[in-house]
This record gives sequence, structure tokens and C-alpha cells, in this order.
Amino acid sequence: MAGTLKEFEPVFFPESVAIIGASRNPGKLGYQSLKALTDAGYRGKIYPINPNAETVGDFRAYPSILDVPDRVDLAVISLPPNGVLDAVRECAEKGVKGVVIFASGFKELDEQGAQAEREMARICNEAGVKIIGPNTIGLMNAYADLNASFAPIGKLLRGDISIVSQSGGMGTTLLSYILEDGLGFSKYVGVGNRANVEIADMLLYLREDPTTRVICVFMEGVDNARRFLQVTKEVAREKAVLIYKVGKTRVSNRAAFSHTGSLAGSYHLYRAAFAQAGLLEVMEPSELVDAAKAISILPPAGGDRVAVVTHTAGPSLVITEILERYGIEMSTLSEETKERILEAVPIKINVQNPVDLTGVAYVYSELYGVVGRILLEDENVDALVAVYTPSFQREIPLPAKELIEITKATNKPVVAALISPNIFPIEEKAELEKNGVAVYRNPERAAKATANYLKYWKLKRTLQTRK
Amino acid sequence: MAGTLKEFEPVFFPESVAIIGASRNPGKLGYQSLKALTDAGYRGKIYPINPNAETVGDFRAYPSILDVPDRVDLAVISLPPNGVLDAVRECAEKGVKGVVIFASGFKELDEQGAQAEREMARICNEAGVKIIGPNTIGLMNAYADLNASFAPIGKLLRGDISIVSQSGGMGTTLLSYILEDGLGFSKYVGVGNRANVEIADMLLYLREDPTTRVICVFMEGVDNARRFLQVTKEVAREKAVLIYKVGKTRVSNRAAFSHTGSLAGSYHLYRAAFAQAGLLEVMEPSELVDAAKAISILPPAGGDRVAVVTHTAGPSLVITEILERYGIEMSTLSEETKERILEAVPIKINVQNPVDLTGVAYVYSELYGVVGRILLEDENVDALVAVYTPSFQREIPLPAKELIEITKATNKPVVAALISPNIFPIEEKAELEKNGVAVYRNPERAAKATANYLKYWKLKRTLQTRK
Repeated sequence: MAGTLKEFEPVFFPESVAIIGASRNPGKLGYQSLKALTDAGYRGKIYPINPNAETVGDFRAYPSILDVPDRVDLAVISLPPNGVLDAVRECAEKGVKGVVIFASGFKELDEQGAQAEREMARICNEAGVKIIGPNTIGLMNAYADLNASFAPIGKLLRGDISIVSQSGGMGTTLLSYILEDGLGFSKYVGVGNRANVEIADMLLYLREDPTTRVICVFMEGVDNARRFLQVTKEVAREKAVLIYKVGKTRVSNRAAFSHTGSLAGSYHLYRAAFAQAGLLEVMEPSELVDAAKAISILPPAGGDRVAVVTHTAGPSLVITEILERYGIEMSTLSEETKERILEAVPIKINVQNPVDLTGVAYVYSELYGVVGRILLEDENVDALVAVYTPSFQREIPLPAKELIEITKATNKPVVAALISPNIFPIEEKAELEKNGVAVYRNPERAAKATANYLKYWKLKRTLQTRK
Repeated sequence: MAGTLKEFEPVFFPESVAIIGASRNPGKLGYQSLKALTDAGYRGKIYPINPNAETVGDFRAYPSILDVPDRVDLAVISLPPNGVLDAVRECAEKGVKGVVIFASGFKELDEQGAQAEREMARICNEAGVKIIGPNTIGLMNAYADLNASFAPIGKLLRGDISIVSQSGGMGTTLLSYILEDGLGFSKYVGVGNRANVEIADMLLYLREDPTTRVICVFMEGVDNARRFLQVTKEVAREKAVLIYKVGKTRVSNRAAFSHTGSLAGSYHLYRAAFAQAGLLEVMEPSELVDAAKAISILPPAGGDRVAVVTHTAGPSLVITEILERYGIEMSTLSEETKERILEAVPIKINVQNPVDLTGVAYVYSELYGVVGRILLEDENVDALVAVYTPSFQREIPLPAKELIEITKATNKPVVAALISPNIFPIEEKAELEKNGVAVYRNPERAAKATANYLKYWKLKRTLQTRK
């Protein structure tokens, strides 16, 4: 096991977890965090720490972590800021390997808070304790059924996307997108104030993490920009790293600085450095999750020219418009392709890109397989976006197996824009995504995910050429 | 009843509907459209027309609409393109007042199709029949429990937003947003090829429709741009009109032209004309529904400077960034406001805009009422965005009644960004929206809705000054 992986092993795969401040009061984080842990189905030992209770939930409680008879790997400190330092001291004495600290009121608040945070870091550095936080919603590892946060979201679905967020609230936002999409993930880390664990440390860990393929970073500012960029350059060679950096505008930049107590820095300098380091920057947080899914699911892109096939023009026009706005080129179809499509389609259509098969393809959805394949076989087409509006009643079959077949046959990426309210489940979605077709439920997000996915592979090709 | 309202009365409030091509085969539009009508709870008479069936569903079927013994107000033609003209002739003979035509393969396809469409229009103009389509998913009127489309979406929830879409697929997209949000609407009209009913006609109708307050338009291109702009200018004086116009980029513009057979026109000319006519243009389709909701729910805005209050910095930074990108100014808080906030908050914080109350306001959410009110009482604040991440377990109460109280007390707009996956219902959402607080579930959409809402009122103020 490589260095960083081993170093953080007890934090991400703890054999025992203590909840310091565990509570029976649902209004307290100490209740929510115990619930988060048990709802996720964590199978290690759980030790609630509460000086005023014999038991919390189904567990025996201990007055102090020092009273726990066995080893404790990870301690979740669910206490107000003024109780944190004492708890940290006891954790260090107990020999825990990691602490998660929810409380705010440290470096981000004032000099007194900064001083407390430095003291916390000093104690933990001496004792070899990793600090997740303070000022964080915590961490999750789906592969250990570990939810060490105060957000009880039930069982954690496993996948190969990991998230590192400097902000707890944005962590919630990104988790919301993941949950809405029914997507799995590997690790979620809210680094918060980064008392002794930086974003860069988590990137080094995730580089070695075998179940992480794509890393999403929500960043406000860093103290050591040089190290961050050096590290990400290394990591981006092996794993896809996507970033949303707050502070693209004047006021948001100033506010980001004030919040994190870190230099937000000039956005334009960051932007150039991101591209050089091989990081894909996205414009909005939702794009982070959508693009990560596309990169995780689709085969690598060999170029960035897109064909769109649809039975309804409007959404394909919106997709075309967004692709162009994001700098992606629409394929110019070869004459041979046009003729092949005309022969394959039972009715008269105007063949151009987007290819509008009209209403006939809504009912005879197998046309998506035939025409999609012709398009992917055109050397001018690097990726296909298939637009389809599923019947609200599910009685008309989606072109699911057809899209799976053509991506497998051609090894080119297929994105399915299955336009419908995401409150209505699409049964075929899981099957499609398991088989290499990325599904989005509206045209805007399908287009942006496709654009970001193509930009990622373009960046990758550019960097490889440069080497 | 005014002219246009009366003219379209039998189309939107028909006492009887015939489904021509009604079918028992779930794979046919004639099945889906009958289901759409009955699922919506339509209480008028329903006449399936099918020469090969005695009954369809629970209804007696007739071989031809001419065999129906009673009057028919609206006919839904669920036939392939080659059957449409004959059906239209029979509808005209029967004296129906409106026809909905799903089939494509007319003006948008080729000259032969265009000729058929002209013939269809000639017949209907002579007989006084309104044509919705062809090449449409149809129309809906929640206030008549009428779903005359092939999208069965159950009961139609009533509200004051109406949608006019040139594209069926984008109609589905906009309906998806409405359904995901649990939003009500008044009318939905897919005008399709507009054989004799133009977008402008629908705007004139909706201007007079008492249950429509905000009109959303999805437009590809128009044949008569001058009339469209003249009409919208009139309509925009009385109702809010929001528009998404496809064709902002080179390829999408060319494709829009090809699809609709209408001149898409230069986007830049449109853009200037929209603003002059008092139409608010949005950049993405989802913004159409989100902004319409804000305009519908919130009180009018007196200015466009925003304050943000939060317990978690990240999402408020994202909101700030998007507001700035959309040209909205963040309020500079007065010294008095800062002092009042410091006095009101039990812990030490740095007061600036966004106002970060830190984790304490997550647990003591009543702070949103206290601080929100202080902010709204500042003359530099025209609108408030309150950011809150609801507990996934609902045990910690949201600041719902507090936000309702402060918008009522100050008559200034309050937007609640309640960040959480929209698959988890928020019970307080309906209460908040009924009482004037607009709710969004992620920071991006909250910010864009706020920005578009403020831009709408700014546009309105500018036009009033000019008069």
C-alpha cells in the first residue's frame, strides 16, 4: 500500500468510530451524526461519548473517549467550538488516527479562532492525528459504509466519483446532485478550514484510492497555491480532476477570501494554471457532477465533434446552442452518411446535423440504433447525443438497448438526453449507465456534460502531445 | 368577454372533445392522448373516433366525427400525416371550433408538406376552425382539467403561469421543470407549425386570460416578426412575458430556420427588439420556469440590490458569483445595519454581504427572521436571498414562518435557497410559496431566478420612465 493511502487508511476505513457529543436530541448535530453513521450501515464499532448518558441510541455511551476500553480509529467531534480543543487533546492522548470537527468559529472567524486552530493542529501533528475540518460537514466513504458527517442520507451507493469540497454547504449541493441522479460515489471529504489536511493531501490520497476514477473539487481558496498546482498536475496524469473555483467575479472573490481566511487569489491566474496542470474547470457546481459522470461512464473521446439525433427539434437546437457556446464543434456529416440515413429512414426527412427523425422515431425508437450507428461510423463524428422524450406512461419503449449496442460496436461515446421530469424514474437508466451510455434528464445538462467531457479529453490530448 | 378570449373559448374550455384515431394500443398516440384527457379528469363529453372499434376505453366509439350525434368543440387528430387532411375536412363539416394536430411532415418537411398545410389552413379559415399545430404535442388548460396532448401527466395543478412553446420537445422540457417543482400552471400551448394560430395569437389570448399572470415563450422563429413584436409590446404592458429564443449561435440559428421553415432571423436584432418590447429574455430554458415562478410569487421589486444571508458560506459565494455574472449588484450594507446584526446575533461574526451567520443559524433558524428583517429594513437592500440546507431528517425546523413574516412586514422579496435533493420533499415549500416566498433547491437556480426576476422589474421600471 502506497504512502498516502496507508496514512489515511484509519480515517477512511476505520475499525471503530467515536461520536464525541453524541446526543438523543434530534436538534443536535451529535444526534444527526450518530444517525448518519448507523443509517449508512457502518459495521465497525461505534462509541457514543456523552458524560450525561449511559446509552445513546442502541449503544453504550462513555463519559470520555479515554474511557473507551478499545482502540478508536476515528473520532467525530460534535461539540460547540469551546469544547473542541479539550476533545482534541483527549483524542490525541487516546491515540485516534483521525478527527472530524464540525464546529466553526476558528480561522474563518477571527485571530482568537485562528490561534485555537493552530493549537489544534500542533497537538494533532505531534500525535499523528489527521484533522478533517474544522468547519466541515465531515467525510463519507461508500466502500466502508462510513458516513462520518451530520447529514444522514441512508445507505451510500458505491461509484467511482469522489468529491473534495472546501465548503460544507456546497458539499450538500453536490451530494444533492448525486442523490437526485441516483449516482454512486467513492469518497466525500469536506476539508473545511484544513487545519492539517489540505485539498492537495486529499488529491494525493484519491490518486492512490483504487475505487476513485474521477475527482471533483469545490474550491474557495488555498494557502499554498504552488503546492496545490504541483500536486494536481501529478494527480491529473492518473485521474480526471474537475474543479469549480469560487471567486470568478469581484465581490465573490473578496467574499471567498474573507470566508476561508485563505488567499482567493486572482481568478485569471488560477484559470491559466488549472489548464496547464490538466484540471478541467467548470462554470457551475452542477456541471461538476454531470461532467464527472460522463467521464466516468463514457469511453475516452478521440475528438470533439458532435452529432445529435432526435425525434423533436427544439431540445436538439438548445443542445446545439449550448455546445457551441461551450466551444464544441458540430460535425459536418459526409455525403455518404446523409445518403445512408435517407435509405435507412422509412419517411422523407431533411438530413443535417442535428438529425431530426421526426415523430416516427418516437414510436419506432429502434431507428435510434440504425441512424445512431451510421452517424458514429462517420469519421467526422466523435460523439453522439441522442435526444428522446420518454412517454410519461412508459408504454412506448425507449431506445435503450440500441444505444448500448452502438456505443459498444463503435467504442464512441453516446449521451442520452431522455427528457422527462426526474421525479418519474426511468427504469432503463441504470442499465444504460452500466453499459457506457450517460443519461441526463434535460437538454441543458446533457449539453454541458457532453461539452465538459469533450473538453476534458481535449485537454488530456493537448498535454500528452506537449510531453 | 373580450374578442380573443371569446374566439378561443371553445378551444380552451371545450364542452366536448373528439379524439380522432383513439386507440386501444398503448404504442399509439391515439391511446396516449385519450389517456391524457381522462387522467386529467376532464368532465366534458369524450368521443373516440375509430372506424374499427365499438368502444375505446370506457367510451362508445364512432366511425367518423360526422357520426357523433352531438356538438363537438375540440377535435384531437391523432393520425399519421396522410390521414390528417381528410379528418380536417370532416371536422370543418362537423363545425368543430378547434383542432389539435400532432402529426409532423408538413411545412417543416418539404414543399408537398407545406402545400398540404396551406390547404389545411384554407379549409379551417373558411370554417372558422382554430388549428393548434400541426407538429405539436398539443394544449392543456388546468382550469378546464383539459389535457389535449399525448403526454398523460395526471391531474393538472392550477397556477398562474402559462407556456407557449413552438417546440413539442421543449414543451416537455418546460413541463418537466414545472412537474419537478410541483408548480401549477394555467395554459400550455404547443403551437407547432402554426398553420393558422401564431404565437402572437396565443399572447393576445393569454393577455385576456384571467388566470394567467406570467407567460413563458419558447420560440424558434416567426414568419411575421413585426407583428410578433407589436403584439408582445402590447401584452407585456399587462402581463409579464419571458422568452427563450433559440438561435443565439451560428449553427443553432441555421438549424432553427431549417426546422420551423420560418426565418430565425439575426439574433442580435431580436435581442434589442425584445428589450424594447418589454420582454425578458433568458439564457436557458430552465430559467424560464424558475423566473416565471419568482415573478408570480414575489412582490414587485423596487430596485435590484441583493443581500444574502446564510449559515454556510459556499453556496452564498456561488449565488453572489452568478448574480454578478447576470449583472446584479450586491448591496453595500449600512453601518447601522451591521451594528444591528452584531447586536442580534449571539456569537461573534464578520458582518458583510453575504451575511454568514455560521452553523449557529442552522440550529437556531429563527435567526433568519431577526437578521433577514434587519437586512430588508436597510434602504440599500431591495431583495433578500436566504440560504439554508435543511436537515435530511427534518428534525431541525426550517426558517419558514420567519421568512414569510419578514416579506409580509417589509413587502420586499425573499427568495429561499433551501439546498437539498429535490427527491426529498420539503413540507414547508408549499406554505412558503403560498405566502410570497419563492423556493429553489440549489444555489445556481436560486441565483438565476433572483437575477431574472430583478431584471424583469428593472425593465418594467425603465419602460415606465420612458413613457
